[in-house]
Amino acid sequence: MTKNRLENFSDAVIAIILTIMVLELRIPHTTAWGSILELYPLFIAYGLSFAFIGIYWINHHHLIHAVGAVNSRILWANMLLLFCLSLIPWATGFMGENHFEQNSVIVYTLLCMLPAIAYSFLSSAIIRSKNPNTQALRILQKTKTKEYMSLALYVLALVSSFWNTSISLSLIFIVSCIWIIPNKQIEEIFD
Amino acid sequence: MTKNRLENFSDAVIAIILTIMVLELRIPHTTAWGSILELYPLFIAYGLSFAFIGIYWINHHHLIHAVGAVNSRILWANMLLLFCLSLIPWATGFMGENHFEQNSVIVYTLLCMLPAIAYSFLSSAIIRSKNPNTQALRILQKTKTKEYMSLALYVLALVSSFWNTSISLSLIFIVSCIWIIPNKQIEEIFD
Amino acid sequence: MTKNRLENFSDAVIAIILTIMVLELRIPHTTAWGSILELYPLFIAYGLSFAFIGIYWINHHHLIHAVGAVNSRILWANMLLLFCLSLIPWATGFMGENHFEQNSVIVYTLLCMLPAIAYSFLSSAIIRSKNPNTQALRILQKTKTKEYMSLALYVLALVSSFWNTSISLSLIFIVSCIWIIPNKQIEEIFD
Amino acid sequence: MTKNRLENFSDAVIAIILTIMVLELRIPHTTAWGSILELYPLFIAYGLSFAFIGIYWINHHHLIHAVGAVNSRILWANMLLLFCLSLIPWATGFMGENHFEQNSVIVYTLLCMLPAIAYSFLSSAIIRSKNPNTQALRILQKTKTKEYMSLALYVLALVSSFWNTSISLSLIFIVSCIWIIPNKQIEEIFD
Repeated sequence: MTKNRLENFSDAVIAIILTIMVLELRIPHTTAWGSILELYPLFIAYGLSFAFIGIYWINHHHLIHAVGAVNSRILWANMLLLFCLSLIPWATGFMGENHFEQNSVIVYTLLCMLPAIAYSFLSSAIIRSKNPNTQALRILQKTKTKEYMSLALYVLALVSSFWNTSISLSLIFIVSCIWIIPNKQIEEIFD
Repeated sequence: MTKNRLENFSDAVIAIILTIMVLELRIPHTTAWGSILELYPLFIAYGLSFAFIGIYWINHHHLIHAVGAVNSRILWANMLLLFCLSLIPWATGFMGENHFEQNSVIVYTLLCMLPAIAYSFLSSAIIRSKNPNTQALRILQKTKTKEYMSLALYVLALVSSFWNTSISLSLIFIVSCIWIIPNKQIEEIFD
Repeated sequence: MTKNRLENFSDAVIAIILTIMVLELRIPHTTAWGSILELYPLFIAYGLSFAFIGIYWINHHHLIHAVGAVNSRILWANMLLLFCLSLIPWATGFMGENHFEQNSVIVYTLLCMLPAIAYSFLSSAIIRSKNPNTQALRILQKTKTKEYMSLALYVLALVSSFWNTSISLSLIFIVSCIWIIPNKQIEEIFD
Repeated sequence: MTKNRLENFSDAVIAIILTIMVLELRIPHTTAWGSILELYPLFIAYGLSFAFIGIYWINHHHLIHAVGAVNSRILWANMLLLFCLSLIPWATGFMGENHFEQNSVIVYTLLCMLPAIAYSFLSSAIIRSKNPNTQALRILQKTKTKEYMSLALYVLALVSSFWNTSISLSLIFIVSCIWIIPNKQIEEIFD
């Protein structure tokens, strides 16, 4: 199993996860503005999850870049990450269809945390593997702070979801912003 | 992030968007000719959107060809474009299911405009990036007129959708024709 | 637009068409053997269409192999072929859900003919283009008889569908067999 | 048809099969914990099938690695394998929706056996083809014991599904574990 094929397969799976999410957008059978506007939670949830999956795609690329040789541990940690990500479309539809009701936000926040945990498994599997790409690892090191911060914010989001769902969703949104805003250090190396 | 991987991922997402649209075609549970012919708005909407997405696929290729080095701005402008395109299947099903009722055409026209705007963001992000491919940029320049014309026609289509939906849909159809009819200048360079 | 990218994109679209067809298989909410066996038309239709799309994938590959330089005509003939193929999942679900009722078989047979016609458009667009790969064209020539035979059998299937749907479906099945049974001449060249 | 293209296409189909399975997860329209927890059979079935398809992806890669030249037999044995795998999402949804009722487990176990049979067809088609990659074949030989063991366990699972469905599902789970636990011999060669 080459690193290249692992990446191509993961890319395909992530592209499909990203896109089938749109199938969760229900088509109303009436065109009154009211019934269209009623869908807004689905669209907000969709936008939030689209950014979430997009960020994982980019980070996954940087991570796989650091792989020297693919072993079983990396292979299955990667599978676990894809599995966790594949639950996001369901969580998105669930939260959107139920208009951000508390339980649906709790479930969504929980399912947003899972990929973060699987990602750290994959990350440590790569570090423990033979011949990792040291330059790529150094770059990953620089995003480590962001990773821990994200995980902490997700835990905070999960806890706060039992009290106030707006805070949870804002925290998830903030995590996305942290990753979308360019990291100068990474960019300087690649530019 | 290499330009090649950005293009492959975008291609995969566009291919999925193009194809899952067919899942919005409802399967009638009776085979009377009447109930089959009743589906014609879904098929017309599907054909229109298929051409629409197909054109974006081709143009996106020309655009990415001009990228020198991928930076965060390009990455996220590209994500925004993919997000806007991913709403087209929903808009297509919505308009088709509701037999081109006015509000559904307004929504469809609006969602056809969004990718055009995201496309111009991506276009300017590439021009402002380091080391763009100047030859490819020159070719893009030649389609600039088409781009502005398309955007103007979409605005016109949106405005007219509040009065007469046939005009809107005709305008969207005309924009597609503008892009499908070969641009001799581009072709001469590639042939 | 390189020939390679055209092929990759087409491959992705065909792979998606092939696979989303499975989503048309309804999940019964009771597990009585009767209700499971009642689904047999869906599974037969699915198998038939899976072979149909699979054959197009293989032939499409041989066809694109003959392309010298991609021009607008080839690009859009290819898009038309993908569009026609993308209607097969709908036709499959329609015929399966309605237990091979006459009208559903007529529609299915008609939609099986469309890709054959689009394929011949693409084929002649390639022959008329600049610098086609002559060796690949010679191989294509050898399958020309098969192509004409298939088209004739589809027309026969369409006509007979108005009288006897079993004959139509048998003819479509025979066309698939014609293509699946190895063409010694082609194989000798590739082996 | 090059081996590379066969592999890319198969990878795409497997990636789609893996991912569209998530669309079988029903979205409850109430957020009571009871109605969420009621979905647990769907999630268990999904996890089981995700591992199942993932294992086929990895094994398929090793198998295709052994191909010297693609011939018709290999092409169609591969198509048959993809067809059998594509039925897994349906079987997963069927079993999950019906809360592991006996008949649904019988069907699931049966459909888990089919890819194993198609896989052995493909495997022997490759061995009988011209110029197989002998080194890759030697590696495949080492997993032959696992293959026979899996097939025997699937047969056992099928038989026991008529008596006790828990045993069947445990056996299917055990087969997955057999493949996920790293095979030291293979790893030593690749590492």
